[in-house]
Amino acid sequence: MRLAIIGLGLIGGSFALALRAAGAAREVVAFDADHSQLDEGLRLCAVTHVAATPADAVANADVVLIAVPVRAMESVFAAIASALSPRCLVMDAGSTKASVAASARRALGTRIAQFVPAHPIAGAEKSGVAAAHAELFLNRHAVLAPLAETDPAMIERATQLWELAHARVVRMDVARHDAIFSAVSHLPHVLSFALVEELARRDNAGELFRFAASGFRDFTRIAASSPEMWRDIALANREALLADLDRYRAALDVWRAAIDQSDAAKLEALMQTARDARKRWQSGGYE
Amino acid sequence: MRLAIIGLGLIGGSFALALRAAGAAREVVAFDADHSQLDEGLRLCAVTHVAATPADAVANADVVLIAVPVRAMESVFAAIASALSPRCLVMDAGSTKASVAASARRALGTRIAQFVPAHPIAGAEKSGVAAAHAELFLNRHAVLAPLAETDPAMIERATQLWELAHARVVRMDVARHDAIFSAVSHLPHVLSFALVEELARRDNAGELFRFAASGFRDFTRIAASSPEMWRDIALANREALLADLDRYRAALDVWRAAIDQSDAAKLEALMQTARDARKRWQSGGYE
Repeated sequence: MRLAIIGLGLIGGSFALALRAAGAAREVVAFDADHSQLDEGLRLCAVTHVAATPADAVANADVVLIAVPVRAMESVFAAIASALSPRCLVMDAGSTKASVAASARRALGTRIAQFVPAHPIAGAEKSGVAAAHAELFLNRHAVLAPLAETDPAMIERATQLWELAHARVVRMDVARHDAIFSAVSHLPHVLSFALVEELARRDNAGELFRFAASGFRDFTRIAASSPEMWRDIALANREALLADLDRYRAALDVWRAAIDQSDAAKLEALMQTARDARKRWQSGGYE
Repeated sequence: MRLAIIGLGLIGGSFALALRAAGAAREVVAFDADHSQLDEGLRLCAVTHVAATPADAVANADVVLIAVPVRAMESVFAAIASALSPRCLVMDAGSTKASVAASARRALGTRIAQFVPAHPIAGAEKSGVAAAHAELFLNRHAVLAPLAETDPAMIERATQLWELAHARVVRMDVARHDAIFSAVSHLPHVLSFALVEELARRDNAGELFRFAASGFRDFTRIAASSPEMWRDIALANREALLADLDRYRAALDVWRAAIDQSDAAKLEALMQTARDARKRWQSGGYE
């Protein structure tokens, strides 16, 4: 099997390493605009060949994984559409699905039946192929969000490949995917970024950060994420994210009122609801 | 030296263990309303004696550390005031300082000169004396916020003790303390609690939490904190926290507008400001 990776970073590199470790990918050809990623990918034996263009990468490929920022997806689809073999499975690895599906419909033409939107839930604050490893997807969810046009055989193939990469495959439609990940991922990223940005703008930012401790460290770890990637995600999932931001602001108004009115019982009840849910989540009670 | 701990949990227990490890506390007498904490403290050799009341605990003590939720401080001050020796150093370990200082002024009477408000920056999601250890304060800040009435010799003594516990002692006034920790600790706690609480109330909470991953885990770790403790902190530092909540909501309005208007450049600039500050903080650039 010949695998093509467009966008060789943490996700693309880990998928290549996982399928090579499983003996499922004899050849891996990669394209990345950043040539240093390709050099590193060869050095790590994640890839066996590099390509000069996305179209060159996908020529003769059996499977293509596109792991670029979501707003770059459409140009990749357009660049590869005419070079794809009719039997080639095409997947993306983007964090939003409706925008990627729309891009694919516009740019893939008749190849749309070969496209299985995918989202492996395995982001990390690290990026780049140097951080890739064959076990990145172990026990993580890989969401597949097939389109009405998608060939069922392609869905089956995609499922097998992500299972070979040791992921737990879940299927859902694109709208449900985007609503879920807006709430549990995109919104927390915006809230974390916004806190650090607000503090950084203050005159006494240095003093504030000097005394920030472990609670701050964990709350803001995701504020060190890639601005390019998260700008794209926020805009690609704009409607769901705006709705969640408004729900969050309404919730925060309730918290603010409880504090303003020194309503100890209300505040404790709100906190207890949160703590109970967080502890249940931590102990696997929502699996 | 005889040390008394009122409220034997993570902080009180770790202070006792640290001073025993340093050879500075021959006797440690503890009071806690939860007798299981006292039993565990004896078992861990954090304490050498237990007392039936706070007043019994501080009789003949050279140093008292009060490590109870901040809204319980005043009743402890009132209970021990008449039992304190005139040479005994009294410290609290609360996360807010203005409210504790006001409680001390009301309840300690002439003993106020012996009181040094203290805040070791070493909270953790764990609580209880079972989690205590002698190195908890190693390289952490211990903020001392002495009052105008505080005897300088007591400040000196407090400084020596926290340094024996390997903390980095910093002095500041109570208002500055409360403003700093509202911004970098109390506000993030409220924001994290509020996210989990809002998601937990939704009809599809189970599905949402099922797909929550590592970003959510870190963002919400502090939402598993003690509701009793954080209710008290939020109300004790109410004014600073309300001001910070309002600043945060104003900042969030800017983020929302950038997303609503699909202003990619603005959104990326906001994220880059946050990421730069977070990376600088992580690498010690604000020390």
